[in-house]
This record gives sequence, C-alpha cells and structure tokens, in this order.
Amino acid sequence: MDFRSLGRILGILVTIFSVTMIPPALVSLYFKDGDGLAFTLAFFICLVIGLAFWLPNRKAKADLKAREGFLIVVLFWTVLGAVGAVPFLISQSVDMSAADAFFESFSGLTTTGATVLSGLDELPKALLFYRQQLQWFGGMGIIVLAVAILPLLGVGGMQLYRAETPGPVKDSKMTPRIADTAQYLWYIYLSLTVACGVAYYLAGMSWFDAICHSFSTIAIGGFSTHDASMGYFDSPAINLICVVFLLISGVNFALHHAFVVTRSLGMYWRDPELRGFLLIQATLVLTCFLVLLGDQVYSAVGTTLDQALFQAVSISTTAGFATTDFAAWPLFLPILLMFSSFIGGCAGSTGGGIKVIRVLLMNLQGMRELKRLVHPKAIYSIRLGRKPVSERVMDAVWGFFAAYALVFVVIMLALMSTGMEEITAFSATVATLNNLGPGLGEVALHYGEIPDASKWLLIIAMLFGRLEIFTLLVLLTPTFWRN
Amino acid sequence: MDFRSLGRILGILVTIFSVTMIPPALVSLYFKDGDGLAFTLAFFICLVIGLAFWLPNRKAKADLKAREGFLIVVLFWTVLGAVGAVPFLISQSVDMSAADAFFESFSGLTTTGATVLSGLDELPKALLFYRQQLQWFGGMGIIVLAVAILPLLGVGGMQLYRAETPGPVKDSKMTPRIADTAQYLWYIYLSLTVACGVAYYLAGMSWFDAICHSFSTIAIGGFSTHDASMGYFDSPAINLICVVFLLISGVNFALHHAFVVTRSLGMYWRDPELRGFLLIQATLVLTCFLVLLGDQVYSAVGTTLDQALFQAVSISTTAGFATTDFAAWPLFLPILLMFSSFIGGCAGSTGGGIKVIRVLLMNLQGMRELKRLVHPKAIYSIRLGRKPVSERVMDAVWGFFAAYALVFVVIMLALMSTGMEEITAFSATVATLNNLGPGLGEVALHYGEIPDASKWLLIIAMLFGRLEIFTLLVLLTPTFWRN
Ligand SMILES: [K+]
Ligand SMILES: [K+]
Repeated sequence: MDFRSLGRILGILVTIFSVTMIPPALVSLYFKDGDGLAFTLAFFICLVIGLAFWLPNRKAKADLKAREGFLIVVLFWTVLGAVGAVPFLISQSVDMSAADAFFESFSGLTTTGATVLSGLDELPKALLFYRQQLQWFGGMGIIVLAVAILPLLGVGGMQLYRAETPGPVKDSKMTPRIADTAQYLWYIYLSLTVACGVAYYLAGMSWFDAICHSFSTIAIGGFSTHDASMGYFDSPAINLICVVFLLISGVNFALHHAFVVTRSLGMYWRDPELRGFLLIQATLVLTCFLVLLGDQVYSAVGTTLDQALFQAVSISTTAGFATTDFAAWPLFLPILLMFSSFIGGCAGSTGGGIKVIRVLLMNLQGMRELKRLVHPKAIYSIRLGRKPVSERVMDAVWGFFAAYALVFVVIMLALMSTGMEEITAFSATVATLNNLGPGLGEVALHYGEIPDASKWLLIIAMLFGRLEIFTLLVLLTPTFWRN
Repeated sequence: MDFRSLGRILGILVTIFSVTMIPPALVSLYFKDGDGLAFTLAFFICLVIGLAFWLPNRKAKADLKAREGFLIVVLFWTVLGAVGAVPFLISQSVDMSAADAFFESFSGLTTTGATVLSGLDELPKALLFYRQQLQWFGGMGIIVLAVAILPLLGVGGMQLYRAETPGPVKDSKMTPRIADTAQYLWYIYLSLTVACGVAYYLAGMSWFDAICHSFSTIAIGGFSTHDASMGYFDSPAINLICVVFLLISGVNFALHHAFVVTRSLGMYWRDPELRGFLLIQATLVLTCFLVLLGDQVYSAVGTTLDQALFQAVSISTTAGFATTDFAAWPLFLPILLMFSSFIGGCAGSTGGGIKVIRVLLMNLQGMRELKRLVHPKAIYSIRLGRKPVSERVMDAVWGFFAAYALVFVVIMLALMSTGMEEITAFSATVATLNNLGPGLGEVALHYGEIPDASKWLLIIAMLFGRLEIFTLLVLLTPTFWRN
C-alpha cells in the first residue's frame, strides 16, 4: 500500500469538501439564523484537517492499483462522513451526541435520508440547507462511483456486464477518461437539479424549499426541511413533480450520458433495465392503488391515486419521502414497499438497493433453471435484451446477492441483540442497507430514540449498501492485505 | 402426459396408504379410546379411492419420462396429504374444519410439525399415534425422494453435484436400482427409529410415548403427544437422546447407506457437508449458551447448557420440538434460531431448509468473488473437499436460493395481506417453508387461531419447502405443459 499517495488524495478531498461549508454559512448570513459561526468554524476545521493530510504528502504521486482503489473509495466515504459531522457537533442550535452527528452526516452523504432530528421546521435554515447539500454531493459521488470508478474495480459484476455490452456506454471507452465522464455526469446532474428546483418553485414551494428539495430529489436522498416531509406541502402537483424526477434519477446515468452524446431517445426504451424498472414501478403503484381503494383508506379516488403513486415511487426508488404516515396504511403495503426497496433503482443511478439489472439477471437464471429441468439436454444462454450474459457476470451477481442477504441478516440480528424490537430492527436494517431512509415501528418518523450502539450499526449498514457490499467486505479479507 | 399411468401409480400409492390406518385402529382397540371406528372407516374410504384409481388403469404401464416424474412426486405429496386428512375429518373426538384437517395432515406428512390442535394430552391415543405415524412415513418418503428420485429429476443441483462426486454415493450407480436403495434406506431408517424408541423408553418415557416420539424424532418432524412437547418429560437425559438422534437424522442418509455398505466410519468425517453441519450446530449451541448465561435466564449452569443444546439443535435441524417456551428467551435468540432453520439439515436427510451443502457452496463462491476482486486475473475454482464443483451445479444452487427467497417473500406478503401481524407472518412462513413447525407470536404454541385462508397458504409453503421449490414451481411453467 502506498499510504503517502492515499494521504495526498484524502487531503485533497477533505480540502475541497471544506468549501462546501461556505454555502450554508451564506444561507445563515441571509436568514440571520445564528448558525453562521458554526459553519465558518467548520470550514476552517475541515480545511486544516485537509491540508494536514495534503501538504506533507503533496509530492507523493504514484500509479494506484486496484487495491488502493478500494481503500480510496472506502476512505472517501468514511472520512467525508466523519468530517461532515463537524457542523452537527459544533452547532449551538442542536444538541447531538457523536453517534447522532455521525449518523446524520453518513445518512446524508450516502443519500439514505434517515434522520435523528425532529422539529426540523424550527431549525436554523443553514443547518437544514447543509443536510440537503450533503445528500446532493453524496448523490453526485454515487454516480461517479457507480458509473466511472466501481467498474474499474470490478465490484458487483456490472463492469463485466457492460464491458461485454456493445454501444456507447461501454466502459472500455470510458476508462481512459474518468475526468471527462465525470464532467459530463456533473452537467447532467446539475441540469436535472435546476429543472427540478424550478418546477418545485413554480408549483408553489418557497425558493429555499425548492432548492433544498431539488437537492434531495435528484440524489434520491429523502431529507426534507419539514418534519412532515413532502406532506407539508399537501400538493398533488408537487408530488407529481417529485415522482417524475425520482424516476429520471432512478435511471442509469450512463444512459443519460449516452443520450446527451447521441441525442437518441430510442436508446432509453431499448434498455432492458429501464423497461424492467418502469414495469416494477407500474406494478407497485397499481397494487397500492387497488388495495387503498379496496380498503377505502382515502375518500376520493384522486387522493388515492396521488398517494399510491407518490408513496410507491418514493419508497421503491429508495427516496423515502413521506406524505401521510404511510406506516399507517394496511400493513401489507408498507412491508411490500419495504421489500421493493431491495430492488431499488437502476445501476448507475442515485437509487439504492440491489439494483434492477441484477434482479433481472437473477430472474432470467431462475427461468433458465426451470427450463433446464424440463429439457436437461438443451442449452440455454442468458440474454438481456439481445446480448448473452457470461457466467462470470452471473457469478458476480449471485455473490453480490448472497453477500447482501448475509449482511442484512447479520445487522438485523445484531440490532436485536441490543434489545431492539423486531419490526423496528427489520425495517431499520432494510431502510439503511438499501439507503432508503424511513423505517417502521420506532423508526417510522425518525431515528432519534434508538440507542447509540444501534446508530453505529446502522451507519455501517448505510456504508455497506452504498459501497455495494463488496467494496467494504474485501477490506476484511486477509487476501487484500497480503502482498 | 400419460394420465392413465399416473392414475395407476396414484391408485397403488393410495391403496398402500390405506393400510396405514390399521395401526391407529389397533392402538384404539388397545386403549379403548373410542376412535377405532373412525380409523376403520378411514381405511375403507382410502381403499376405495385407491382402487378406483388403480383398477381401471391397472394395465397402463408405460415408461415414464422426467416430466411425469415431476407430476408423480407432486401428486404423491398432495394426494396423500389430502387422503391423510380423512381421519381428522371423520373423528368424533376433534372438531376440525377442512382447512384444519388438511393443515394437520400436510404438516405431518411433510414433517413440518406445525399443529392446529391443542389439548393434545386429552386426545384419543389413536389420533395421537396417527399424527406421529404420518410424520414417520413422511420422513421415509423424503429420504427416498431426496436420495433416489429428485436426483433423477435434476432438482436443486444436488444430482449434478453427486454425479460428479467419486465414491460409493454416486447417483449413476444408484439409478438402475431405486428399489434396492430404497430398501437399504428403509432398514437404516427403521433401525434408527427402534434405537431411538428404546433409548427414550429406558430414559423414562412410557412405551407409547417412546414409540410416538421416536417416529417424530427420526423424521425430524416435531409432533408430540403432549402440549408441552418434550418439555412434558422435563428430563435432561431425554433431551440429550433427542439431540443425538436429531443430529444423526440430520445427516445425508446416502452417507449412512454408504457406511452400511463399506463399514468405514472415516467417510463421515471426510464429508465436508457433515463437518459444516456440525460446525453450525456447535456455533449455535455455544451462542445460545453464552447469551442465556449472560442474561441469567436459568439459575443453574447445567440447565442452561441442557436448554441451549436442546433448543438450538431442535430448531436449527428443523425438528421444532420445544421444552420451555423458547419464544420467551431474549428475542435475539429465537430469531437467530429461526434464521438458522433456513440452513436446516444436510441434503438427503429428513431435515428441512436450504440444506447445509448449498449454503457451503454459496459461501465458497462468495469467498471466490472477494478473491477475484483483489486478483482479477487469477483463476479460482470452487472446491468442496478436494473435488471441483462445476458451473452447472452452482447455477442450480443459486437458482434454488433465489427461488427460495422469492417464495418466502411472496408467501409472507400474502399472509400479511390477509391481515396477519408481522412477526406471526414472518415466523409462520419460516416455520412452514423450512418444514420447522413452531413459529413466534400468535403461532408460537399452535396454528389453531389463524384464519383458514392463512392455513391454506401455509400448506402451500410446506409443500414448496418439502419439494425443494423447483419440483412444484416447474409445474407452473408453460414449458412443462408444452409438447
Ligand atoms: K433515500
Ligand atoms: K419439523
């Protein structure tokens, strides 16, 4: 391991990150909410930490290998998550323990959107803005990670799959120009955010709320500036805007990238993952709609459709915005939607979960096994769209799935061993591992009341989910550290 | 499909099955419990049904293909499960709905051991004996199915795995002589039952209880003649006997078969699945022991060890016998043990669950994926013991795992949609799909109070579990029915 190079890269990251303390400080100045000093202080603290890593190692430039790549990715999220907790720790307007501050920061940066805070409406605007901004940068980080970096590291089988895919999204073409790709992705991400913010504003949000919620919408983050989340606005128009932009953000950004390059809309429709994604969303919305209608949960059909559409998309894309307390729906639906968050968004989107493409591939193999039983001698290849998928990709997908299930069970049992009640432990694990946000039971509204030990466990779950399990798991193997 | 041949085989099966009504009738005669007429009547009903299928088709002998094989296996369990419900329906001593009677019968025959009955201690001895006997025949059926028939059908990857395995358990050698193998297995099964029954008797059970519990122990069934299950006897010696025979019955009977043929004990120890099985058991017992000790659930260390050993083995092998109300343990432990029942016994044993060997194989592949991340160019093959495992086997194992998870989620959601509370729905699905028996929440003691619709769903779960998912699932595909 080349630790000096690692130190240099981390130093640069933290130094750049310190700059993100300035916008909240300006917000504080504008609203005179009293938190300006905290953010100015946080800026200097982060700057000093960053420079302390950077300057001594500034000349350490080495070619980094795959192993250093894993370390950098993990350190990127853990160090920024830790540094991001600074404002929560030093702000006078909230009283947060270390566990609380780290939880909120990691939850923001991983776009999980689980919060330990309540009484959001009374908090300083600067702090609210900062939380939303954490999600926004986190979302951008995810896309660059998923589209440009993880493929190079070979995590989760997607790199192999795409390397075999003909067309403009081919990684082998992207490889030599991560920076280029990242810049494109950044423009797309920014444009979507602006469009979303303008739409929210036109639909009636204040400009502050519009900006804040556009951040957490495009990042599929789910943080809000109100305790009632999107329910605060009580507006079907705003709900609909949110749904549309969640669906756009749930698509593979490599597809958006290819669209910007080629200007061909047809490629969206030809993408099997996107079609699967939309089919899943439609099925969930319809199921919720029919059950709510049958149980007469809402008096008007329009309200039923609005709520079914919004909640189904919000939970299954792993955004986790709420309107009504959806935990109060007939229990079948919340659990169904919690399970749907295991599927989550498309690979290369800001959504969490296992990702649609992996679920599609596993489904195809299941079908193949059934066919093989009837015709044992026949040869069936797995094809997505028209492209055959190699055994190597399937190996990686299955390994991912099994590791995901294992991490889920271990974290849930660990939570229960701290004495947490079942439905709370179950839903908290689902909500953090899938980077969803809100749970059920004691964590339906916020995570403020659970013990600190549970919060640390959930932080680990968020990281596992966001880093596609293996990026983190590989650091725990002896092979990784052996020369 | 050759439906006349199917009719003939089913007719023979039901006719033979009708004979199993005679031992309970004799038990009734001995104890004068008043249920003799019911079993005599049940005998004639089954006999008439059986002959009605057999006689018109008695000349229809055709070579059966794999597809007819699937149908026969599924019909075997469903038809015998249905016919087995007859005594429950006509007995005057219990008042059972159709759902209750089918539930009890399928639960017995699939060796699940979930019961809708309470007040067992007051029931006629004949009916109690009949329930235990159902499990015993079911257990025998499972072993023949798993060791001799499913491999021919290619379900779940084990046939392929064993076909590649050198040694005396090779399926290709067994294939031409199912009847021979079945006879050997029958002797082993009977001997173990006699040994277990004698041990129980010597440890203080009445001869009736000893026979009844030897039936449900070797079948890893879990039915008892007392509401308090094994707790009724309150005897560490009996608990220990139960544990020993559960562990023996949790081993692949093909290994026992090979031992009888070769008389070499070493082959047990060289079997990687058996080693994995024992390691899992030891870990679970130790975990339960330490947690119970730490929480001071029992005052004496001896009692703690006795209870930890008994409950851990009983639940994780999917027997489901209880002593104390283990649902009252610190919640972490019951949930841990419920999850361990997903692993279950070894393939080819009377235990349920996914089976140790599949879990081992998935674990090996997970490890390989981690190593591949660090050294992407290296070639790693999956080896169990010293034998490489082919991609084809891994495909089947992963397909099995995914289908298992899917069936689990669908049945659990379906239960919740009938209004069942979460922990009850979760544990009931675990307990039936893994052929375990007792659940938590409302089904911790028995399944009598849940709605009929839920009972039918759970019957389907038992069948899915016992028939290794794919045997049943394949019948739902169009490919199967196409010519
Ligand atoms: K989220
Ligand atoms: K059982």
